[in-house]
Amino acid sequence: MSGLPKTLEKIIDSFSRLPGIGKKTAQRLGMYIMKMDNEFVSDFANALLEIENNIYSCSICNNFSDSETCSICSDPTRSSRMICIVENPSDIILFENTGFNGFFHVLGGLISPLDGVSPEDLSIKTLLDRINNIDEIILAIGTSIEGEATSLYLINLLKPFNIKISRLSQGLPVGGYLEYIDKATLEKSFLERVEIN
Amino acid sequence: MSGLPKTLEKIIDSFSRLPGIGKKTAQRLGMYIMKMDNEFVSDFANALLEIENNIYSCSICNNFSDSETCSICSDPTRSSRMICIVENPSDIILFENTGFNGFFHVLGGLISPLDGVSPEDLSIKTLLDRINNIDEIILAIGTSIEGEATSLYLINLLKPFNIKISRLSQGLPVGGYLEYIDKATLEKSFLERVEIN
Repeated sequence: MSGLPKTLEKIIDSFSRLPGIGKKTAQRLGMYIMKMDNEFVSDFANALLEIENNIYSCSICNNFSDSETCSICSDPTRSSRMICIVENPSDIILFENTGFNGFFHVLGGLISPLDGVSPEDLSIKTLLDRINNIDEIILAIGTSIEGEATSLYLINLLKPFNIKISRLSQGLPVGGYLEYIDKATLEKSFLERVEIN
Repeated sequence: MSGLPKTLEKIIDSFSRLPGIGKKTAQRLGMYIMKMDNEFVSDFANALLEIENNIYSCSICNNFSDSETCSICSDPTRSSRMICIVENPSDIILFENTGFNGFFHVLGGLISPLDGVSPEDLSIKTLLDRINNIDEIILAIGTSIEGEATSLYLINLLKPFNIKISRLSQGLPVGGYLEYIDKATLEKSFLERVEIN
């Protein structure tokens, strides 16, 4: 028995089910919520309640969306004829922050036979529907085994369409010291060295 | 522009206003919430909405409560004639976990002239109303300057009532190595050494 009201226990329990939040942090967050103004708390709660009815998958790119097509796919200022292929909607934020002005396509996962994820489980069919007016497809997928398998699958699939396909570069991190780089990354950065003049 | 639905942006913004949660963690939590089942999310949201109307301050001890008196103050199995004085309701969880079976009193803060908190701002009057049937008062307050000032104030205030007053012991942490203990704590643990036989 914690001596806490049931409502507060439910809030603490909810926080503790989120990733990276243990029991103690959940308690701290729950207690903090109790001190916040009611307007903030009800806004937060209402936004959570809106998820079920107000958030869809974009019918074009599979991103989270307010409406049938997301704000990126329906943005007329995006003139770029590039599609950046990502695993999850959360990856889109990362590339938006780099200033990329093209479009995205969210696969919704990576090919992983061990987890029972095959190409049919990813939104690849809708990708093929889009590539008529596109000049370049950028594979912006991580370099895990599943990521590499998915990239390879997509490269083979997209080759016949005669579109430029690129992937993210691999090598040293910006601001990184050589002695802290793992061997595989160092070899890759040597192999893919860039000519300067 | 993040390319995210407004609802999701609001959720991410709400998370980022909680303590210890930065922009990136808030994004991760928001994205995770999108994948959780609707029942969990609506339970969470409804618990948040219930705070305004369902959580009160216990009229006896000032703890958070479902009703006029909290579950601890109205628990008939608590026979102990001790009151443990704490700063915040969140401290109660800590002492409940130690197996303490007495009652609590939440001050709601610590005396801090620099922050404009004087004894009148703390729930001290309601404490004095309770001490007739009590054998011992335990000052379970931290040892910051504000904590020590508050303890000192309470000790002077409670002296005339002829009740046993105690405070938490200070000294080495359990499982601690001597070389990592700060000088002030070591001196304290030396001064307050405990006789063994």
